[in-house]
Amino acid sequence: MSLFLCDYAEGAHPEIMKRMEQTNFEQTYGYGNDPHCEKARNYIKDICKAPDASVYFLVGGTQTNMTVIAAALRPHQGVISPDTGHINVHESGAIEHTGHKVLACPTPDSKLTGDMVREVGRADITNHTRTHMVQPKMVYISVPTEQGVMYSKADLKDLRAACDEYGYYLYADGARLGYGMMSEGADVTLADMAALTDVFYIGGTKVGALFGEAVVITNPSIAEDFDYIVKQNGGLLAKGRLLGIQFETLFENDLYFEISKHAVDMAMRIKNAFKKAGCSFLIDSPTNQQFPLLTDKEYKAFEGRCELWGEAMDGFKAVRFCTSWATKEEDVAALEEEIARVCAR
Amino acid sequence: MSLFLCDYAEGAHPEIMKRMEQTNFEQTYGYGNDPHCEKARNYIKDICKAPDASVYFLVGGTQTNMTVIAAALRPHQGVISPDTGHINVHESGAIEHTGHKVLACPTPDSKLTGDMVREVGRADITNHTRTHMVQPKMVYISVPTEQGVMYSKADLKDLRAACDEYGYYLYADGARLGYGMMSEGADVTLADMAALTDVFYIGGTKVGALFGEAVVITNPSIAEDFDYIVKQNGGLLAKGRLLGIQFETLFENDLYFEISKHAVDMAMRIKNAFKKAGCSFLIDSPTNQQFPLLTDKEYKAFEGRCELWGEAMDGFKAVRFCTSWATKEEDVAALEEEIARVCAR
Amino acid sequence: MSLFLCDYAEGAHPEIMKRMEQTNFEQTYGYGNDPHCEKARNYIKDICKAPDASVYFLVGGTQTNMTVIAAALRPHQGVISPDTGHINVHESGAIEHTGHKVLACPTPDSKLTGDMVREVGRADITNHTRTHMVQPKMVYISVPTEQGVMYSKADLKDLRAACDEYGYYLYADGARLGYGMMSEGADVTLADMAALTDVFYIGGTKVGALFGEAVVITNPSIAEDFDYIVKQNGGLLAKGRLLGIQFETLFENDLYFEISKHAVDMAMRIKNAFKKAGCSFLIDSPTNQQFPLLTDKEYKAFEGRCELWGEAMDGFKAVRFCTSWATKEEDVAALEEEIARVCAR
Amino acid sequence: MSLFLCDYAEGAHPEIMKRMEQTNFEQTYGYGNDPHCEKARNYIKDICKAPDASVYFLVGGTQTNMTVIAAALRPHQGVISPDTGHINVHESGAIEHTGHKVLACPTPDSKLTGDMVREVGRADITNHTRTHMVQPKMVYISVPTEQGVMYSKADLKDLRAACDEYGYYLYADGARLGYGMMSEGADVTLADMAALTDVFYIGGTKVGALFGEAVVITNPSIAEDFDYIVKQNGGLLAKGRLLGIQFETLFENDLYFEISKHAVDMAMRIKNAFKKAGCSFLIDSPTNQQFPLLTDKEYKAFEGRCELWGEAMDGFKAVRFCTSWATKEEDVAALEEEIARVCAR
Repeated sequence: MSLFLCDYAEGAHPEIMKRMEQTNFEQTYGYGNDPHCEKARNYIKDICKAPDASVYFLVGGTQTNMTVIAAALRPHQGVISPDTGHINVHESGAIEHTGHKVLACPTPDSKLTGDMVREVGRADITNHTRTHMVQPKMVYISVPTEQGVMYSKADLKDLRAACDEYGYYLYADGARLGYGMMSEGADVTLADMAALTDVFYIGGTKVGALFGEAVVITNPSIAEDFDYIVKQNGGLLAKGRLLGIQFETLFENDLYFEISKHAVDMAMRIKNAFKKAGCSFLIDSPTNQQFPLLTDKEYKAFEGRCELWGEAMDGFKAVRFCTSWATKEEDVAALEEEIARVCAR
Repeated sequence: MSLFLCDYAEGAHPEIMKRMEQTNFEQTYGYGNDPHCEKARNYIKDICKAPDASVYFLVGGTQTNMTVIAAALRPHQGVISPDTGHINVHESGAIEHTGHKVLACPTPDSKLTGDMVREVGRADITNHTRTHMVQPKMVYISVPTEQGVMYSKADLKDLRAACDEYGYYLYADGARLGYGMMSEGADVTLADMAALTDVFYIGGTKVGALFGEAVVITNPSIAEDFDYIVKQNGGLLAKGRLLGIQFETLFENDLYFEISKHAVDMAMRIKNAFKKAGCSFLIDSPTNQQFPLLTDKEYKAFEGRCELWGEAMDGFKAVRFCTSWATKEEDVAALEEEIARVCAR
Repeated sequence: MSLFLCDYAEGAHPEIMKRMEQTNFEQTYGYGNDPHCEKARNYIKDICKAPDASVYFLVGGTQTNMTVIAAALRPHQGVISPDTGHINVHESGAIEHTGHKVLACPTPDSKLTGDMVREVGRADITNHTRTHMVQPKMVYISVPTEQGVMYSKADLKDLRAACDEYGYYLYADGARLGYGMMSEGADVTLADMAALTDVFYIGGTKVGALFGEAVVITNPSIAEDFDYIVKQNGGLLAKGRLLGIQFETLFENDLYFEISKHAVDMAMRIKNAFKKAGCSFLIDSPTNQQFPLLTDKEYKAFEGRCELWGEAMDGFKAVRFCTSWATKEEDVAALEEEIARVCAR
Repeated sequence: MSLFLCDYAEGAHPEIMKRMEQTNFEQTYGYGNDPHCEKARNYIKDICKAPDASVYFLVGGTQTNMTVIAAALRPHQGVISPDTGHINVHESGAIEHTGHKVLACPTPDSKLTGDMVREVGRADITNHTRTHMVQPKMVYISVPTEQGVMYSKADLKDLRAACDEYGYYLYADGARLGYGMMSEGADVTLADMAALTDVFYIGGTKVGALFGEAVVITNPSIAEDFDYIVKQNGGLLAKGRLLGIQFETLFENDLYFEISKHAVDMAMRIKNAFKKAGCSFLIDSPTNQQFPLLTDKEYKAFEGRCELWGEAMDGFKAVRFCTSWATKEEDVAALEEEIARVCAR
């Protein structure tokens, strides 16, 4: 039976596997200094409309977050994050390991707003003991959030404005960026991401690649000596061309967007199946992650194929069903039937 | 006019100044290997009824906190703290600088309870993604808290029990320990502190000394190579005997307790003056810090002599009046009159 | 024309590519909790004759070194390394970034000896200011060294004995371990590595894999919570099965050894060609790296295909020719002819 | 019998003790925001002819070194130091604890030269793998060195020039700066120190104060947010005025220079006594530290009163005799006699 546990259960999109195979015996320089990385960097700069951006390829998300933050901040500076942010919850303290405090903000729906940032900023600059405190300097958001909620272009503009008011960097973790951009109602493009943040990354691991995240830095002060910082954080892949090949494949013909769209379509079918069966949701997500609230008995039926996310109110369990580029239509069809059968209320 | 801003506005108790003067030309070894430190360590071990404890002298509180935590934790481990805890708020990220996350807990009154610790512990051990999270390993409390609230012996026993259930160290920051132990209703002794914590410190900076904190370590696994960690954190005073002399003076004849008692007595007079005038308080503190709620007009009358702590509800300002070993009776008498005059409602 | 610049110029051994392809649509749990990792761990424990060892898979060498060292050491402890060691020279300060000093030892030939370790140990324990110094606690060696020199079993036994005398961990970086074990005269097996070190890693990146290093930990105190430390250092691959599949392929049928042997054979042909042409060498390496000394004119002929290693005495340039599992016989044959032609003296 | 073990064996100069006493009951703001610190900062800026410098007071030398270096460097940057430098040898890895590698240079006489710096710089910028290495960014020297050797103004100008060529900061540790400036033949003033370095500190602990080091920062990029960095490193003294009072006393009437001169005079008498007795020296020091080479029998006579520095050639022991502001003439006279008696050859 098919799993909907996460979006990294399979290998890579077949087109990527083919390219890996085709280029396997090419001899290239290491560490990202190869024609594939060069090409991929150019594709990404083009689509981001950011010819002066610096693009780096790293292997995974935690690694990318710790590297970007270490590159951007001085020792006494911290990073504002929704309290549900990946850096605050699920990185085993990687950010603190590089010396920086995560300044966690509660949010109603996992999204940070400009006003939340302004509140932190105002509290900081008006505090007469501020030199005894961590200095906020960067805002971290996940686009979409870990709970599948997408930022609008207006949201990002507001965050950008707030960051400019207080001199903060804006950093977006795009582990699932494709699934956000392709969600219904989304109006954010990669060019918007590049224009509105100082640095963000385009996730590959969860969106078609075997692994890999493409960091796009538009603020030169973060880009300075970034390659040293990557190496120092253990994020420099010897056979860097593996990253180049994958992002080249994803971005030379809109493959990244197509497969993201597919995942979202599949998620919407699952969402609707649960809706039709009368289920509520922990949060209203338009992206590839769906969080229906199930009874114990219902959950049992799906156990092992979806992730138990937490206990919700009234004895319901919040569970996560995740689709990806690899989700098969026939598996979703079977799941739809099963949902109708199991959850009919 | 006399200030009630903080408890570190003056130098040291005259007895300490005298001893410093008397011993000034003694030649001793450096770094705490001198007869004064030896004597002070013995006094402290005696009064703590902890003959096997290790006692170290450091210069200041932030330094002590970062050193103790760095000595105790492995890189992936974090320290549970009330969100009002000094390490979470007022150390410019010193703990994160040593690589560790502060796991901040909201509390109603600045005190951590055994059940709050148990909740963190239970959440940790039942989380299937726990290896992606910071591992709780130490509990940090301030005795009394930064808001002047004192733990009872029963409170500490409950925390000890909770720590034992989950394998956590219990660490108490005693920057104002004397003022807590001498507060009305307090039932905690230094021997209790030694018996119930793995490590705690007896604050000197705010309680009669020019500077200095005495760390008492009863858990040998934290004591191992502690001297290296002190040196590495820049906390080893060359003329270590200065610390020895001060703690020798404070503990050879109960001076520490007497001067703490004096500060608390003075604070209670101030508290009662505000009460009599009809003022409410931010929090009910039995120690040397008092937090009356004042109107703007009332605050203006005291501005510069007390610390503005924050905006309270209904337009009141929370302010802090602080006494210390150095507070003079005549200054308190004058303040009592002034309070009666200014705050009469 | 074929390159001999490094041993990470190509992708992976075709058998690995095939397995990746075959398993591409399997759905597995992430982070190394999959059947391929399980199988690979078992193969490795078997061949290491270390049933109780803990085996972890990481992506790259620098990442592995920083993770192992961070897991093993307390903050004030340092790691003894030959001054030519990768951690001392080529990791952009990754070890210092985790807080630890590399205690660099000069060596005549890039190999550390038991007596060098003993000298550090003796100097440490007899120094009356030792608590003001970094405490040596781990010995780091590369097997074979970065200069292609191999340790014998007797060498390792001597290092083990020295480490035991002073209470040090022995850690071996095996980035090119296969090429060392398969070199002429080598008498070290994986079982020896496991028996004589506390922790070592079997390099995949340079020996047939796309990427990946297998860490084998035999000392339980280093293994404790190692998974947290991997995550914290950004070394946990989401699709962990990619590492499992590769090491499964390398170790189920001795592929690792066969392809290592091939690389060494090719290197020996290059070595002999230079010898026959009358060239000297920077160092006498029996492994896949060869360091002939060339005149400027000779170097020009090979420029871009070998790595310039440094200036040697008498105006000669030291250059590195590197073979790997991917080196083709016909390319070596062509190189032999070219060497004879270019370097004839 | 009087000790010559170190220059921190006594308390403070009587004038400082008097001022401490006189000001003991003044009420001041904490953390260095008091009139004494203000006055002391102004004295120092005046004498340094550096009206735009930022002056901070810290408690000890290791603390100062770690704080300055943490403030100045980005994570991948390291600090060039003579291998005998305090930061490389005697700070328990404090610099590495803040994440930075000490790039140790061998020197013949404990002094770094411009050409040594240039060699490091040249090697760095010509290395094609430099992004895999630590980036040199700061040069650390001790003025005078730990071995008592003094830099000339020409030496410092040469270092400054070398630093400018490679874009490095120049940082001088002045733990014993007074004893260096007052040594025979010295031509360096505090104004020179301020003009030729980016940051340096004037040592108080070893030169008349109970404790305290005054950091003078002339490069604004190091001064930015320096107060946060001090707090984060545990170096912010609550009763900061204690530092202000001491440096005020030392610098309002040339006391710092007078007492330094006294220590050097006393050291010269000791030096001459050993010379007259026929002894050689480990190094020729014009400052308050003298390193005669003694036979075992001679050493026994002084054991416990001087520091054993190491074993020198031909079976001699190198020992350190140290004078300070507190050294008494009668004790030196007695020592002269003793030297003549014990060491006559």
